[in-house]
Amino acid sequence: MPLSYFWLILACNLYGASPGPQFTASGELVRPEDYREWIYLSSGLGMTYGPNAAEGEPRFDNVFVNPEAYRAFLASGSWPDGTMFALEVRRSASKGSINRGGHFQADLAAVEFEVKDAGRFPGKWAYFGFRNESGTLAKTSPPLPTASGCMACHSANGAVENTFVQFYPTLIETARRKGTLKPGL
Amino acid sequence: MPLSYFWLILACNLYGASPGPQFTASGELVRPEDYREWIYLSSGLGMTYGPNAAEGEPRFDNVFVNPEAYRAFLASGSWPDGTMFALEVRRSASKGSINRGGHFQADLAAVEFEVKDAGRFPGKWAYFGFRNESGTLAKTSPPLPTASGCMACHSANGAVENTFVQFYPTLIETARRKGTLKPGL
Repeated sequence: MPLSYFWLILACNLYGASPGPQFTASGELVRPEDYREWIYLSSGLGMTYGPNAAEGEPRFDNVFVNPEAYRAFLASGSWPDGTMFALEVRRSASKGSINRGGHFQADLAAVEFEVKDAGRFPGKWAYFGFRNESGTLAKTSPPLPTASGCMACHSANGAVENTFVQFYPTLIETARRKGTLKPGL
Repeated sequence: MPLSYFWLILACNLYGASPGPQFTASGELVRPEDYREWIYLSSGLGMTYGPNAAEGEPRFDNVFVNPEAYRAFLASGSWPDGTMFALEVRRSASKGSINRGGHFQADLAAVEFEVKDAGRFPGKWAYFGFRNESGTLAKTSPPLPTASGCMACHSANGAVENTFVQFYPTLIETARRKGTLKPGL
């Protein structure tokens, strides 16, 4: 029934299904423009392990994962091929409107993606960075070198494969229940 | 075509459409269990205007809005009836896993909801609080009194109606473009 199928696809698009990671012919990641509509996992402020830890005003990092991967993780405790994490880095501010203390989120500094594709990447996962320069982000970006700090730290310290599930309060119990945490965690 | 309609509804449910706010016969809000799958708007740490500003370790607040209201806001700059905001309050931690500074999110302290329903509430908006006591949250909660601090502060200081769009970096431009910010903002 082609017509029903058309409506099904339309409904899925309206409600957030995504086609998964997209790459150029040369292997660059096409920057996902809808990551703010993915599933939110957690935020940090000024965490020292972060790749964008800055001196001066601390930065927020917000972590999102694509909805398809999130649902697969809830069911299995593992990340399927096509998993995409977004790490959004924002500057912080303290004084504004009625706020007089603490920190709230301000301008975008950078957004980085972590993608799982066992067929495409030798280490299964790869990392892609987009810096906000003068208010614009590049449309595509090549993977960071496998010798980069991202890969080294994620593969050594991630609680589930290369992902920092130990910092995602709504996912850690699922991983524990499904037995997918790394040994010793 | 009832069968196609069935699949359409199934697809919508799988991809996150929600039925809107639900109330008991006595007017208590049934706590939405899926708010972590709504659209994330922003986080703060230790913001002093927050209803749960605490002494000691600062707390994170994470703000989410239901997807249907978010899409309506992107189109119009205004919130439709049925809009639901979630304010999730989490304790923070500094030392854990590889982290040695800054703050990351830990246990849930409370979750509060702000609901718009012009027919049900004299002030159009109402506020509902759920504290996490011994790991459980109540299933339903009555609206906070209209004389509460929530209502007074939101209605006086929200940038768009009772909502703090001034703190949501991905929405403020929409409100500016659509001309729905309060005068003077």
